[in-house]
Amino acid sequence: MERVDIAIIGTGPAGVSAALTAVNRNKRVMLLGSRELSEKVTKAHEIRNYPGFPQVKGADLAEAFRRHLEAAGVEITEKRVGAVYAMGDYFALQTGEEMQEAEAVILATGVVQAHPLPGEKELLGRGVSYCATCDAPLYRGKTAAVIGYSPREEAEAAFLSQVCEKVLYFPVYAEETGLPGSVQVIREKVTGIEQADGKRLVRTETGAYVADGVFVLREAVAPDTLVPGLATEGAHVTVNRKMETNLPGVFACGDLTGTPYQYVKAAGEGNVAAIGAAIYVDAKRRQKEAALRSE
Amino acid sequence: MERVDIAIIGTGPAGVSAALTAVNRNKRVMLLGSRELSEKVTKAHEIRNYPGFPQVKGADLAEAFRRHLEAAGVEITEKRVGAVYAMGDYFALQTGEEMQEAEAVILATGVVQAHPLPGEKELLGRGVSYCATCDAPLYRGKTAAVIGYSPREEAEAAFLSQVCEKVLYFPVYAEETGLPGSVQVIREKVTGIEQADGKRLVRTETGAYVADGVFVLREAVAPDTLVPGLATEGAHVTVNRKMETNLPGVFACGDLTGTPYQYVKAAGEGNVAAIGAAIYVDAKRRQKEAALRSE
Repeated sequence: MERVDIAIIGTGPAGVSAALTAVNRNKRVMLLGSRELSEKVTKAHEIRNYPGFPQVKGADLAEAFRRHLEAAGVEITEKRVGAVYAMGDYFALQTGEEMQEAEAVILATGVVQAHPLPGEKELLGRGVSYCATCDAPLYRGKTAAVIGYSPREEAEAAFLSQVCEKVLYFPVYAEETGLPGSVQVIREKVTGIEQADGKRLVRTETGAYVADGVFVLREAVAPDTLVPGLATEGAHVTVNRKMETNLPGVFACGDLTGTPYQYVKAAGEGNVAAIGAAIYVDAKRRQKEAALRSE
Repeated sequence: MERVDIAIIGTGPAGVSAALTAVNRNKRVMLLGSRELSEKVTKAHEIRNYPGFPQVKGADLAEAFRRHLEAAGVEITEKRVGAVYAMGDYFALQTGEEMQEAEAVILATGVVQAHPLPGEKELLGRGVSYCATCDAPLYRGKTAAVIGYSPREEAEAAFLSQVCEKVLYFPVYAEETGLPGSVQVIREKVTGIEQADGKRLVRTETGAYVADGVFVLREAVAPDTLVPGLATEGAHVTVNRKMETNLPGVFACGDLTGTPYQYVKAAGEGNVAAIGAAIYVDAKRRQKEAALRSE
């Protein structure tokens, strides 16, 4: 796939704003996330302080964002990014089994509200995964447990059920599930994940379930898990007023950078991050051209 | 006049956003500035990256802001603030001949694009003034020169012509003037202001004009002139990510805090400043209550 100038991860107000400003600066953009946009926006009952939209329903503001992206020619690539690797001269984004290349990256994934489950971080990559598309082949014909933090994760569980022999699904939400009959839904509060005899054990308040692989699926992944080497403070990415992180070429914006968790704050930071990323990409290009000329 | 919780100076996207968030946080707000909102917004031909408004005319975005302020019950107080003084426990804002009191202040005045004229800063308060309403009485029956940076300043010159014997008006813009016949319009480029024999001398590229007082009228005043003691870097106010300045209780947002000069960046910062100011006001109130209880 062609390398883009700026990959933007997340389709909340920060990511949408970053994409609009980046295309306005004539940059080739890949905007990765849900076409439904951020659940935090779409599910908001009423937003009163996004200037220009008095007392707007979250769903209506999201619709206005979608129309704006369309008018600007920005498409949403509906892929989950498993990891971002700094390759020296560019960045590689793992999206399922593919890799996407970008000159610069803007993180706009929102903040992980949930604490990781006990055992989750320790077993990540050793039986625990955040990406069904990436790791399903490892559990072909085996048992997978899915801990899903929103109904959107059900599509992943349904996909796994086509590959695995058995899928256990632990919904971490109240809504009814709409899963194929082959998926076993377990409505028990998960308390942790353990290793046991070469298998994984999902512990709940009332029992324990054995699986070969455990998928923990949330809307957002902890930022330093997503981008190795990224400086964070608790759940937040450390940024300066230019939305630069400690990694050159990686910018962050929105709830991910800290409170207040507000729509227009996120949109404003997306704008600043996009301008920073555009300047970064342009400067790198000029350096390369100068290096070529002096050879 | 009753003391308000938060005085917000400036009605561009930063000030409007700050006001909307502050009233949302149940704070008593005074929003000071032009009811026409920021000229930078209203005169923008097309804005392409304010998320939610695809390819919007500046005038239409300003209209959406005005409707939003109205829906939120925020009125604009159309007064020019000459100075903000920290009084220890509160702030006093000089607005013409009145003083307005506030617990906290948000600066959203935009950035002063023009450099000060040679002599302007040196003679400020000694024959040079930024506020016609404040200082007109000093020049009753005398000669005033007005250097006006936008057609909006013509109203000030017209007011001065009712008080002064003679008013010279130097427009720093191309538009036609619409001034009373008693005002002498001089279309020459002003190069500086000097002291001469107890009077002021306005120098232009082609001549020199004597006046008792010189009024330099721009949409925005240099921030450290407006707020004595405020830390600045060049034309910008120094702020941290919470939009706090070096003065406790004084916040800044928008173009005033630095580049990029972008509408949604300004709106985002206004939101953060308002939340910071609301938290500051609440904390101060709790401290006072605790002090009263312990007496």
